[in-house]
Amino acid sequence: MEMSDTNFVFHAIGVVRSPHTDPSRTPIQPVFARGVRGTVILDLDYMEGLADLDGFSHIYLLYVFDRAEETLLTVKPFLDDAARGIFATRSPLRPNKIGISLVRLVSIEENVLTVEDVDILDGTPLLDIKPYVARFETREDVRSGWQDKVSDDAAYQRGRRGFRRGRDPEGEDDN
Amino acid sequence: MEMSDTNFVFHAIGVVRSPHTDPSRTPIQPVFARGVRGTVILDLDYMEGLADLDGFSHIYLLYVFDRAEETLLTVKPFLDDAARGIFATRSPLRPNKIGISLVRLVSIEENVLTVEDVDILDGTPLLDIKPYVARFETREDVRSGWQDKVSDDAAYQRGRRGFRRGRDPEGEDDN
Repeated sequence: MEMSDTNFVFHAIGVVRSPHTDPSRTPIQPVFARGVRGTVILDLDYMEGLADLDGFSHIYLLYVFDRAEETLLTVKPFLDDAARGIFATRSPLRPNKIGISLVRLVSIEENVLTVEDVDILDGTPLLDIKPYVARFETREDVRSGWQDKVSDDAAYQRGRRGFRRGRDPEGEDDN
Repeated sequence: MEMSDTNFVFHAIGVVRSPHTDPSRTPIQPVFARGVRGTVILDLDYMEGLADLDGFSHIYLLYVFDRAEETLLTVKPFLDDAARGIFATRSPLRPNKIGISLVRLVSIEENVLTVEDVDILDGTPLLDIKPYVARFETREDVRSGWQDKVSDDAAYQRGRRGFRRGRDPEGEDDN
């Protein structure tokens, strides 16, 4: 079955606001953006769908990499110097520019979610919110391919990509 | 910023094949489909993007809930008897019908991935493959809201939704 001619239309249901306005200085993953706060502004039409979400400590945000224009099948990831297949990376330059970030949910006020560990560019269109359910998500015996060869220190240095919390009065957070 | 008028077009890059042909008997999550094998057939145009993926033990599949026609803002999840906000559930009946499953990668042969723990309906359009990276995905101190009140036994019984591996010569797998 060849499905590459099948298109699907999705729509933004809100927007992510964050202190990240410069793509080249935006951490590549939530773990490299510890403590960085942002907000998710859900369109009011969908507010009813937020019921019961406040009991979850972590949520997945699904969004559009709307500033990634190029599509590549191999890329040099930020954490490595070798080219890797795009599906073995989390690079935005993928065929369908959908990003996933696992962030900490701090609070919900009406249609506005305050979240932490935000690695998402300001103004990013939101597609979905899903709860992180420990029972569903936990895996043992995980092998992470080329990522396993990158040391934690190197990953931290390269993953932050020069991000400094200079605009944050709490200053640098090196936890 | 109101973004609900902004549409994004994505395209299928392949298809998921699985033994699940009856939505009412399909496990609701990979953890309730342990050992169930399926295949991901990537369109040949994208095969180059699979390089280096074989080093990863687990991958996320992103796909379209193409048989979910209704959209609801509150639903009764399979694991519960109370109605919950759609964003506090993993129900397919969400505003943007994008599903995520974390599956075990068994092998890759050219453009065909063999995967395990498949909770995805046969013929589902694939949108993306992302590596599961232990460093990025692991969280501590997780609270899972209403899910924490569902016992593991009840979750297992209800989450499998009557699925039995009758067509699988290995028979029932109750691990």
